[in-house]
Amino acid sequence: MANITGKSFGSDNHAGVHPAVLAAINAANTGDTVAYGADDRTTAATAALCALAGASQAYLVFNGTAANILGLSLMLRPFEAVICAESSHLNVDECGAAERLIGAKLLPVDTPDGKLTPELVETRLGGRGDEHRVQPRVVQIAQVTELGTCYSLTELRELRDFARERGLLVYLDGARIANAAAYLGCSLADIAACADVLSFGGTKNGALGVEAVLTMTEEVALGALYQRKQLLQLASKMRFLSAQVEALLADELWLANARHANSMAKRLADAISGLPGVRLAHPVQSNGVFAELPLSHAAALQRDWSFHVWSELPGKRCIVRWMTAFDTTEADVDRLATAVKSAAVG
Amino acid sequence: MANITGKSFGSDNHAGVHPAVLAAINAANTGDTVAYGADDRTTAATAALCALAGASQAYLVFNGTAANILGLSLMLRPFEAVICAESSHLNVDECGAAERLIGAKLLPVDTPDGKLTPELVETRLGGRGDEHRVQPRVVQIAQVTELGTCYSLTELRELRDFARERGLLVYLDGARIANAAAYLGCSLADIAACADVLSFGGTKNGALGVEAVLTMTEEVALGALYQRKQLLQLASKMRFLSAQVEALLADELWLANARHANSMAKRLADAISGLPGVRLAHPVQSNGVFAELPLSHAAALQRDWSFHVWSELPGKRCIVRWMTAFDTTEADVDRLATAVKSAAVG
Amino acid sequence: MANITGKSFGSDNHAGVHPAVLAAINAANTGDTVAYGADDRTTAATAALCALAGASQAYLVFNGTAANILGLSLMLRPFEAVICAESSHLNVDECGAAERLIGAKLLPVDTPDGKLTPELVETRLGGRGDEHRVQPRVVQIAQVTELGTCYSLTELRELRDFARERGLLVYLDGARIANAAAYLGCSLADIAACADVLSFGGTKNGALGVEAVLTMTEEVALGALYQRKQLLQLASKMRFLSAQVEALLADELWLANARHANSMAKRLADAISGLPGVRLAHPVQSNGVFAELPLSHAAALQRDWSFHVWSELPGKRCIVRWMTAFDTTEADVDRLATAVKSAAVG
Amino acid sequence: MANITGKSFGSDNHAGVHPAVLAAINAANTGDTVAYGADDRTTAATAALCALAGASQAYLVFNGTAANILGLSLMLRPFEAVICAESSHLNVDECGAAERLIGAKLLPVDTPDGKLTPELVETRLGGRGDEHRVQPRVVQIAQVTELGTCYSLTELRELRDFARERGLLVYLDGARIANAAAYLGCSLADIAACADVLSFGGTKNGALGVEAVLTMTEEVALGALYQRKQLLQLASKMRFLSAQVEALLADELWLANARHANSMAKRLADAISGLPGVRLAHPVQSNGVFAELPLSHAAALQRDWSFHVWSELPGKRCIVRWMTAFDTTEADVDRLATAVKSAAVG
Repeated sequence: MANITGKSFGSDNHAGVHPAVLAAINAANTGDTVAYGADDRTTAATAALCALAGASQAYLVFNGTAANILGLSLMLRPFEAVICAESSHLNVDECGAAERLIGAKLLPVDTPDGKLTPELVETRLGGRGDEHRVQPRVVQIAQVTELGTCYSLTELRELRDFARERGLLVYLDGARIANAAAYLGCSLADIAACADVLSFGGTKNGALGVEAVLTMTEEVALGALYQRKQLLQLASKMRFLSAQVEALLADELWLANARHANSMAKRLADAISGLPGVRLAHPVQSNGVFAELPLSHAAALQRDWSFHVWSELPGKRCIVRWMTAFDTTEADVDRLATAVKSAAVG
Repeated sequence: MANITGKSFGSDNHAGVHPAVLAAINAANTGDTVAYGADDRTTAATAALCALAGASQAYLVFNGTAANILGLSLMLRPFEAVICAESSHLNVDECGAAERLIGAKLLPVDTPDGKLTPELVETRLGGRGDEHRVQPRVVQIAQVTELGTCYSLTELRELRDFARERGLLVYLDGARIANAAAYLGCSLADIAACADVLSFGGTKNGALGVEAVLTMTEEVALGALYQRKQLLQLASKMRFLSAQVEALLADELWLANARHANSMAKRLADAISGLPGVRLAHPVQSNGVFAELPLSHAAALQRDWSFHVWSELPGKRCIVRWMTAFDTTEADVDRLATAVKSAAVG
Repeated sequence: MANITGKSFGSDNHAGVHPAVLAAINAANTGDTVAYGADDRTTAATAALCALAGASQAYLVFNGTAANILGLSLMLRPFEAVICAESSHLNVDECGAAERLIGAKLLPVDTPDGKLTPELVETRLGGRGDEHRVQPRVVQIAQVTELGTCYSLTELRELRDFARERGLLVYLDGARIANAAAYLGCSLADIAACADVLSFGGTKNGALGVEAVLTMTEEVALGALYQRKQLLQLASKMRFLSAQVEALLADELWLANARHANSMAKRLADAISGLPGVRLAHPVQSNGVFAELPLSHAAALQRDWSFHVWSELPGKRCIVRWMTAFDTTEADVDRLATAVKSAAVG
Repeated sequence: MANITGKSFGSDNHAGVHPAVLAAINAANTGDTVAYGADDRTTAATAALCALAGASQAYLVFNGTAANILGLSLMLRPFEAVICAESSHLNVDECGAAERLIGAKLLPVDTPDGKLTPELVETRLGGRGDEHRVQPRVVQIAQVTELGTCYSLTELRELRDFARERGLLVYLDGARIANAAAYLGCSLADIAACADVLSFGGTKNGALGVEAVLTMTEEVALGALYQRKQLLQLASKMRFLSAQVEALLADELWLANARHANSMAKRLADAISGLPGVRLAHPVQSNGVFAELPLSHAAALQRDWSFHVWSELPGKRCIVRWMTAFDTTEADVDRLATAVKSAAVG
């Protein structure tokens, strides 16, 4: 995937910055401001985010991996472990940051759809009280998952209740939490209430680069400022991270962006669903479409379109991932759908 | 130091973004681009930086502490240690990131002026070959130092030669390396040639937030991409970091910004030098003025001006730090100098 | 499993110290000796071990987990990962020491019998060169495995050759390597030649408590003395560890002990093999017998005998583990076999 | 210092094992026992140690560095730091284990005699509440110190009270705590009451190799079993560690051994005080004599005697360290004293 002409379906990270966010960055560039987040804009932005999520504190950081690591680091002692999906970003795509920076062992679980359940979590609870074993302490989930699926609120609450009952905490990777709220038609607080610590993703939602770690209680936030600095996440010119958050929260831009991206994914899924040789690999519940199709079709499409082959399957088939973003247009989707159709019908 | 009215002398981080840098960020927001630095803009920006410094590779990261940690992490095995100035940012102001993230022991040395010498480094070379002792491997210096002083090129070369002779590597913290090049009237490459790995600071030089780790040989860069990701420093929308670097390098803006800031510091130093009760604590060799004056004068000045009391001294005196930036004006300096004069003569 | 009367089949760690080893400890207690391994006895013992294994260096440590961690630490950079069996001691029973102390991610693989194959290793080699993924560097195997099985020399050599071809190193956990050599009828060097670093287990073989890390090349041993100290494994009165190694190597006691333990396991396996409801879960290739039988039979046996229920199975069945040691007698085995028979035939 | 003939004054680690301790090891080698400390002997030995020290729990480990690291690891979160003497074993002689294994920054303080005071600790308390700084949490002291000096109980209590007042915990490195109790004529509990966590050293007191981490409250002991395993300190055949502790506690052997070693040091100090060119560098308050004398005399003595030159001084003088042990005889001391006298008077 070299340089991109036209709209990429490769990642919601391929999009640029939403104009309102960029405007806010420009507007924040007036005069001098105290550094490291002691400025009024940061106070306001993090307070607004806390209010929206029902959180006790919000800590802005640079990227999603950092949010996950800071969040988990608040919850874990050295011998405690994290139960997560085998397919999770944390387990697969963060270059072992959890192991290196927190020293935490991950206990991955195979899942059909990227989602944990109490039953699946239960399979990793053996050995509690045995000094030879790491002790499970955190259930790590992503909402949206790495496979584009969403937990229903009922599923989230069952996980949370199960976790509490078994002495576990819940960390929720919310790199695409806006897309989940848009899909479920619920508030951010509804989702956040099912976690002890979570991240709120701005970057994939139209920001230049900002994520937040949200703690749901004062207790779990103890020492977070020090850990953020130590984990290399303290921005000196913090106002420009805060401005991005402010812009996303203003007039619910975060939700509008997510709704739009989700609807573009749905439009794409609808358009390709009945095509010969093509089937959806996972339900489309966010801004990602995972479709199974012949490897040769995928290869033909990649000549003109940017997207990832997610995994190869037997029988010369594969699963591809098409991601939409806040700025994907109906015309972009329709052009891709037409191309898929051409490939499918030959 | 609450909100700031007027120009801050508290930190070069209090300044906003240089207009040309902000313009470059805005200009980069066109269409889709591959993420994580695989885009042409990033290739060009890092190549330009390498050319300027004579470096083999450049890795963009989010902030100065991160640059230091990534750079040192490339150079150290678990049992190897870092000799640094007691007053260094690494030792004092990075919340133990080196210890936590690399597991490295720092071997700090008291210095009169923030600068190491071969003789001072020598004092920490005991115990080599003794398995009970950490093994010194890196001499860490800052150019500009935390006390606003600069190594001369001769001093840098002596340190480098000493290091090589003793089997040590040199890491150079270049958060303000532009100010050093401006002060010395030398090229970036002249300074870089005295290090094995160094950082190039953009943020204090007018960027929104970007720093680079520069490696002088391929060998020391092995694995750097993985370590950058693992150390939470891989930006997804990298083009906006690269755009900042491009803007700073265009028409030597980095050098112009540094020269201006330095000249404002010199103007301030000149203006206050002969005042009763006031004396310069360190030679002014960059964009910082460290002055000794009565504590009561400092307190009086802080009612109207933003700056740090760096340390308290016996006899109700103290050292204050006044920092200038790319956008400090002569008028700003003159107003502060007048205020200092008023305080000094009562 | 409270206090034990009679012979335990719970672990080869339940046995005491072989009389010859204890005699050697007593004999070493004469006069003063330099500490930390600089004494002649340590030089001789480690040289003898190296000669036996064809190793370049030997480092004595306190226990098996420590040997694994020191050995792996010599082989890994921070972003490199370890491919191992899901059932391995390293993955399951070392309380996350690898993750905490080395920061290494383990990439576990399900195996039918505790043994890796080139094909199984291959499944974890995806993502090489992708900066978001940890980079596999070490194939970790145990000989004897956690399930009592042994790799044949052919299998070991295939793994080693595959590893070399793919740029991987091999670490071999030899906590019961003596039992493997006894089973295969090969030399220690035959096994060691298939690894880059390995451990040699003394404790389960009749020692009071000593293991060795063996490096097969000078290169991989760089810094090992420092890492041993840092990883809390440097014994001050080292002569008493070395004396144990000397005693085990004298007259091939290590091999005699292993042969005896193996033969007791085989005797037990033979005695119980045809019993109704009882079947061997894994081939008996060392000093452990893994047998599947009804849960109620296991419970009945545990009233009089010390051993572990290894895992529970559907249908109220389970797998039990019976371990033999250097001092298990034929009478011990026959009494247990009789008890199993009684339980089996009701 | 190669092999040793005659009595070494190089280290109390050069001595062997006290006969009663070795007898206890031999006596423990009867029949099978459960592993990892679940045996009755371990329960009894650790209970006895807790009773003696007024501690809540005791965890046996392999060596002194391990005891320090485990103890500190129980007390620290990732951003918290340890104030210690510059000359402490922790800072100088543990190969950076604290930094690597706990990620903790040490904040060393120069001391005239190896002892911290509230005033000295106070100098490292700057920056509390500043997210850029590590947060001091533990005051680490050694009793006996690395320079052979002892804190009086009054000094210890002042430090403890100061620590509590300032929100700090106290860790006490008791590698030679027996010598301190013997010197002060106090109980182990008197000393332990001034710490939150401490170590009790067996190895230098006549054991083969065993130390204990003692926690003074249940709260600080949370997770200690897991951390001991993770930090590579869980002995499988634990009974042989426990037997050593039992032997040292029986009939107050630990105190008798320490008293004897102390009295031998005092005998040596008395014999050499007053010799021309010789002076005591530190008061003799344990089993170590630090004496200043000409470098040439030290070199002459080292031809026949094992001991360390601790540091070199201007004027071709040096400080030497002579250590006594439980088995140093009056004749050993007198012979050394005679040799020192010969060297001194030429």
